[in-house]
Amino acid sequence: MNAQSLSDTAAKISSYIHRTPILTSRLINNIAGAEIYFKCENFQRMGAFKMRGATHAILQLSDEQKAKGVVTHSSGNYAQALSLAAQSLGITAYIVMPSNAPQVKKDAVIDYGGHIIECPPTHKDREETAKRIQLEKGATFLHPYNDHNVILGQGTAALELLEDHPDLTHIFAPVGGGGLIAGTSLAAHYFGTNCTVIGGEPFEVDDAYRALQSGTLEINETTDTAADGLKMPLGDLTFPIIQQYVSEIIRVDEEEIVSAMRLIWERMKIIIEPSCAVPLAALLREKERFQDQKIGMILSGGNVDLSNLPF
Amino acid sequence: MNAQSLSDTAAKISSYIHRTPILTSRLINNIAGAEIYFKCENFQRMGAFKMRGATHAILQLSDEQKAKGVVTHSSGNYAQALSLAAQSLGITAYIVMPSNAPQVKKDAVIDYGGHIIECPPTHKDREETAKRIQLEKGATFLHPYNDHNVILGQGTAALELLEDHPDLTHIFAPVGGGGLIAGTSLAAHYFGTNCTVIGGEPFEVDDAYRALQSGTLEINETTDTAADGLKMPLGDLTFPIIQQYVSEIIRVDEEEIVSAMRLIWERMKIIIEPSCAVPLAALLREKERFQDQKIGMILSGGNVDLSNLPF
Repeated sequence: MNAQSLSDTAAKISSYIHRTPILTSRLINNIAGAEIYFKCENFQRMGAFKMRGATHAILQLSDEQKAKGVVTHSSGNYAQALSLAAQSLGITAYIVMPSNAPQVKKDAVIDYGGHIIECPPTHKDREETAKRIQLEKGATFLHPYNDHNVILGQGTAALELLEDHPDLTHIFAPVGGGGLIAGTSLAAHYFGTNCTVIGGEPFEVDDAYRALQSGTLEINETTDTAADGLKMPLGDLTFPIIQQYVSEIIRVDEEEIVSAMRLIWERMKIIIEPSCAVPLAALLREKERFQDQKIGMILSGGNVDLSNLPF
Repeated sequence: MNAQSLSDTAAKISSYIHRTPILTSRLINNIAGAEIYFKCENFQRMGAFKMRGATHAILQLSDEQKAKGVVTHSSGNYAQALSLAAQSLGITAYIVMPSNAPQVKKDAVIDYGGHIIECPPTHKDREETAKRIQLEKGATFLHPYNDHNVILGQGTAALELLEDHPDLTHIFAPVGGGGLIAGTSLAAHYFGTNCTVIGGEPFEVDDAYRALQSGTLEINETTDTAADGLKMPLGDLTFPIIQQYVSEIIRVDEEEIVSAMRLIWERMKIIIEPSCAVPLAALLREKERFQDQKIGMILSGGNVDLSNLPF
């Protein structure tokens, strides 16, 4: 993965995704004491950056593979992203979902043309069901984040941000499985000018913070966070990229996450999901260190259950 | 009021307001069967179109008047708009508010530099208190909507919309006191090409609908609507403009308002207040009549109490 592969990825997916807007807020700049450029992936197709990686992963398949479809297990944004990306490209997406997944999540996948295969809500059943679909249908399994093509796809958000603002000193992104921040750090390395990448991670699921300290993948014992998109641990492909190119991870507590989410809703009048507020919460927690810096902030997504808000 | 006065207004206020973005939604277009251009005044400074009219009204004052400040009575968006416009122009704004106004509304006015004068929560006390401030301070009273300078200011949102999309067949706007839709209809008349202006109004406060039928100002017996920005009746300056230039008013029920609001939140990922959803609700109610039309939709504001949502 190098500058050329990132540029190629951006060119390949460009007709299937939105080039999302970059917004600023005078008031939030005043609060942070910095100049912040928000890259609004909440306005991306299906409402999250995951559309980028899913589209790129499918585009890399051979025609024979495409004809047999793709499969993944997810009940979150990736399920919707893979469904919509597959629909846009005229191929079949099989989505393995636990039988107890919320109806609203199932409806979204169906809206985007995905074929849901339900399974009992255990890790083992999920894996086995996905394997069965691979065998029965010949479908290609695509992982939500631990996949170089997905990582490159997610990196195109930061690439676009740096095209418009090449002099950013820092880019903040949330850390879950690590696909977004790994791609972001590659983009900053190849296209930034001394641009430092910083992750925001909830204390409740801080495996990435601990992995950077221990030098080995860590697991999360608890996952009690409002940032439900960040519960997955790093993968063996995202971790080494993060080790090499991400400067640090700042952890935030639940109150900081909800407060940053509310700040964006109230002041910017845009809808973001809790996971998406984590990097702004991280910046605000340590804002003294970032005074007068020019900061890119990846707003990862806006899919939130309006009937179940954290405030 | 003519084309020149609208253009002059736009030029005068341009450095004090945002030229707000125009957004589209493929999904909402599909639902409506029309091509909709949303003019996002929810992204305006202080979160609503009222910033335009307030700024213009203040700019028309003499230096002597400016030195003595301005006064209004409002606990809504106009209180914030006049405060911020006055602050931007370095003058004093006195805001008469009922003593029982929510603290969040008072805080917003204070944030924007307004001076709050509390009064007992009756119509008579409000008027008397505003009169007293005029006498004591020499401040100029500025009405929230029944004022030609305010009407011209509000009309600049539609003017910007038509500059970018001169071939709109219709523009929809909400109807409260009538300042926004009167200004919108002037802009459509002078700058559109056979562009029809249609108002959206809640059944609960349908004085404008009835006034267009009876030919005289009407009052609202009930005001039980989620669209709390539309409770004021038309004024004697807004009404004749609406009679002359607005084609029709479509009334909507509360369920339609909340449903349209939720549709915009969920699909466009932007925050609008209930009043702001009324014109989209009106279009969807009678969408068969507007198939394949090119429609401008004024999204009036995004100031909503997140702790008290209608869904």
